[in-house]
Amino acid sequence: MSEYEAMLAAAIKEARQGLAEGGIPIGAAIFDQSGKLIGAGHNRRVQHGDPSAHGETDAFRNAGRQRSYRNLIMVTTLAPCWYCSGLIRQFGFRTVVVGESRTFQGGVEWLRSNGVEIVDLDNMDCVTLLGDYIRAHPEIWNEDIGEE
Amino acid sequence: MSEYEAMLAAAIKEARQGLAEGGIPIGAAIFDQSGKLIGAGHNRRVQHGDPSAHGETDAFRNAGRQRSYRNLIMVTTLAPCWYCSGLIRQFGFRTVVVGESRTFQGGVEWLRSNGVEIVDLDNMDCVTLLGDYIRAHPEIWNEDIGEE
Repeated sequence: MSEYEAMLAAAIKEARQGLAEGGIPIGAAIFDQSGKLIGAGHNRRVQHGDPSAHGETDAFRNAGRQRSYRNLIMVTTLAPCWYCSGLIRQFGFRTVVVGESRTFQGGVEWLRSNGVEIVDLDNMDCVTLLGDYIRAHPEIWNEDIGEE
Repeated sequence: MSEYEAMLAAAIKEARQGLAEGGIPIGAAIFDQSGKLIGAGHNRRVQHGDPSAHGETDAFRNAGRQRSYRNLIMVTTLAPCWYCSGLIRQFGFRTVVVGESRTFQGGVEWLRSNGVEIVDLDNMDCVTLLGDYIRAHPEIWNEDIGEE
C-alpha cells in the first residue's frame, strides 16, 4: 500500500463512520508530509443538520488553526465540490489526494489549472460506498451538492 | 435605505458582534426574497479556534438545511474569499450583496463570470471596521485568508 493509499484509508474510515451514523458517506483527512494526521472528519449534513459540514470542511475544522497549509495534504474520498475546492485554493493546499472522481468531478480541473497537484486513486471502495448511498438516498445527495 | 442596504445592516451587526467577542469583524446574513432573515453569522476563527467559520459559512450553517438557494440572497460585509465563493457557486446562490471589495476582492469576478449577480455597496463602515482590525492584527487577518 502506498503512502497515499494509507492516507486514503483514514478518509474511508471517516466515510464509513458517517454512514454508520446515518449520514452521507464522504470522509476526509489532513496529513503533514511525515504522514502525521492533523485532522479528520466526515460529512455531517444529516447527523447535525449542518450543510456546511462536508468531509473536507469538517476535517479542516477539526485540524484547528494552522499557520500554513502549503505542506499539508488534503485527502478525501470524493473529488471536492466547488465549496471544498475553494477552501483548498484559498488556504493554499498544494496536494490533494482524491479517492475517486467517477461519481462527481467538482473542481478538480480548476484546482489543477491553478497549480494544485491532484492524485486520483480511483478507489473502487469509495465508488461503491457513495454510489450505493446515492442510489438509496438520491434526494439527500442532490441537496448536498445544491442540485434541485 | 434600500432593501439591500437594510440587509447589509444585519451583516454589519454580526461583524460588530464578532469584534466585541475579540474576533475578526466580518459578518454575513442570508435572506429570502421577501426580506426574511434565514440565517446570520460571523467569523469565529479567534473565538472558537475554528478556521472553517468565515462569515458566509457561519451564516450558511446557521440557516440549516435548505432545499434550494436559488432564490436566497447572500449578504456579506466583505467580498467572499475563494472558499466562500465556492460555497456560493456550489449551492447556487444567484445574488450576493457585498459590503465592500476594497480590502479584498476574493472570487467576485469569478462569480460574476459564472452568472452570479454581485451587488457591491462599497460601504465605508465595512471598510473602516475591517481596515482598523487588520492594521491592529495583521497576522490574524493573514491567517484567515491563508497568506503567509
